[in-house]
Amino acid sequence: MATIKAYGAKSSDAALEELQIERRDLNPKDVKISIDYCGVCHSDIHTVRNDWGGSKYPVIPGHEIIGRVEAVGEDVSAFKVGQTVGVGCMVDSCRSCPSCQHDLEQFCEEGMVGTYNGKDKHLGGHTFGGYSQQIVVDEHFVLNVPENLDLKATAPLLCAGITTWSPLRHWNVKKSDKVGVIGLGGLGHMGIKFANALGAHVVMITRSENKAQDAKKLGAHEVLISKDQSEMKKHMNSFDFLLNTIPVKHDMNPYLSLLKRDKTMCLVGAIEPLEPMHGASVILGRKRVSGSLIGGIKETQEMLDFCGEHNITCDVEMIKMQTINEAYERVTSSDVKYRFVIDMKSL
Amino acid sequence: MATIKAYGAKSSDAALEELQIERRDLNPKDVKISIDYCGVCHSDIHTVRNDWGGSKYPVIPGHEIIGRVEAVGEDVSAFKVGQTVGVGCMVDSCRSCPSCQHDLEQFCEEGMVGTYNGKDKHLGGHTFGGYSQQIVVDEHFVLNVPENLDLKATAPLLCAGITTWSPLRHWNVKKSDKVGVIGLGGLGHMGIKFANALGAHVVMITRSENKAQDAKKLGAHEVLISKDQSEMKKHMNSFDFLLNTIPVKHDMNPYLSLLKRDKTMCLVGAIEPLEPMHGASVILGRKRVSGSLIGGIKETQEMLDFCGEHNITCDVEMIKMQTINEAYERVTSSDVKYRFVIDMKSL
Repeated sequence: MATIKAYGAKSSDAALEELQIERRDLNPKDVKISIDYCGVCHSDIHTVRNDWGGSKYPVIPGHEIIGRVEAVGEDVSAFKVGQTVGVGCMVDSCRSCPSCQHDLEQFCEEGMVGTYNGKDKHLGGHTFGGYSQQIVVDEHFVLNVPENLDLKATAPLLCAGITTWSPLRHWNVKKSDKVGVIGLGGLGHMGIKFANALGAHVVMITRSENKAQDAKKLGAHEVLISKDQSEMKKHMNSFDFLLNTIPVKHDMNPYLSLLKRDKTMCLVGAIEPLEPMHGASVILGRKRVSGSLIGGIKETQEMLDFCGEHNITCDVEMIKMQTINEAYERVTSSDVKYRFVIDMKSL
Repeated sequence: MATIKAYGAKSSDAALEELQIERRDLNPKDVKISIDYCGVCHSDIHTVRNDWGGSKYPVIPGHEIIGRVEAVGEDVSAFKVGQTVGVGCMVDSCRSCPSCQHDLEQFCEEGMVGTYNGKDKHLGGHTFGGYSQQIVVDEHFVLNVPENLDLKATAPLLCAGITTWSPLRHWNVKKSDKVGVIGLGGLGHMGIKFANALGAHVVMITRSENKAQDAKKLGAHEVLISKDQSEMKKHMNSFDFLLNTIPVKHDMNPYLSLLKRDKTMCLVGAIEPLEPMHGASVILGRKRVSGSLIGGIKETQEMLDFCGEHNITCDVEMIKMQTINEAYERVTSSDVKYRFVIDMKSL
């Protein structure tokens, strides 16, 4: 075991501070990664603050990890020392249930092991995430990162990226489909980039007129202001797919009216109770509400390869580890375009 | 035009009473039907009482119509005088929009014409339904009824039947699928019969233990009492499809927990606002909530043919036209197994 430096919270009302944590020695299939960058996801904040309940302290957040391979176990075949790699939201799963067999480890029937606050099968206790110098991960959960990309800006692909890529692919968004991305934050900005790169006609749907210009720069072909009833009416029954990235409780009914018959709105933001849905919103037009959770490892690699080919990264603002508490405040007030990434050299 | 006897309401607080209405003369594609039986659907009551708003009086309800062809227009090819036929919830649509072209007239983009309280394109005003001696309908919206069936008990197939058949077919319920039918009323009892006939393992899901015996007689293989937390837990993540026939506001979240990954719960009962759905209920397991509205004409004919082959009809209680007001009271207190049918000879 190696004791390393990390940044985390000792309790739900504590600010993040420097801590010492332990990483396991290498098993035959393990990859030891020296972390260069780690994105700041809203889930980090929810876990640190125990918003969802069940947080285990100390919490060392971070599941948008980019680094270099420092060492590999004797049976590791896919990675070499020095290679640039990524780790996302999972570091393990049962590998044998139907979901795992279908490359959908995020839906592992025994429960996937989260990169932080998951159940550590090796050391006992819980897992520690990427706000740290190093991480040791089974090679199955390590991603190859295309070297041509700006590495700082690839970190959030491991969560914000795959969370939006997976539903666009699962619901088969293709050239000329009319796709709405609802909400412009960390998830929404990647939704726009991916839907655009897949050839869709992308409509940014937002309550805030001041997001229109940014949305167009990111690749939206149109902006629909959801507060404008007459504009909403013009777009009724016209969308092939809606990616709903709103991270808080909201009313789904106006958005469902935008879908064509038999089409889907997929939730990726809000896990909490939503405003009441009318039965008629799905009965009339046989519409569908679904949701999606990150993506499997195979699909995450496909996304990274696609990003390499199309030169897609996230829009990020770099911070030092020591300013993380300020960054958290800015994330909660939506004051970031569009993701903070920690430069781990600062640790 | 012919003036005929009908039964209906003059205003939302009036009881139903005998009225005179007019039926149009035959157009070339029209079929004149002498009505033998008409089912009593909960929608009839909602419309009579203006529960959904927008009712037009006098309301002559009835969209589960069985009768005999009395005359045909000169261009009618599919029907002959004396033949037993049915009319369901629609009597017209635009015939040219994508939904109509796909045999989904119920989702006609100009709006399908309801059998009652629809916009009458021929006489102006609104359409009058099946609580009457006769009806005149374009042959496209007339169904052929297999003669081997007990005709009294076929009437509710035209609404309760197709409403449950269509989603089971659309979501491809097949042999050995584990299918849950939620709620045992007019819709639920047909859901059980159809899912059983399609070869599924059928689980009746209900709050009322006293419905268990009936559910099994109708074809349910198991009964799951939804108030029993430990039983619900045993069935978590195990269903291939859920047909939700609950006709009132309710909490969908416990039912969503029963679905396997990527599977669908389809609403066919409640059009009103439901209890808040948790985003997590669909995000975890990429589950789907959808809805379904009756079915297209082609699919309704397929259902009737299937019923003829498998000798499937509804469980009905026959009433005279003059006792309709009592029947309405009994429907609203769920005191019917499982559908009232009016013997129109009584009119």
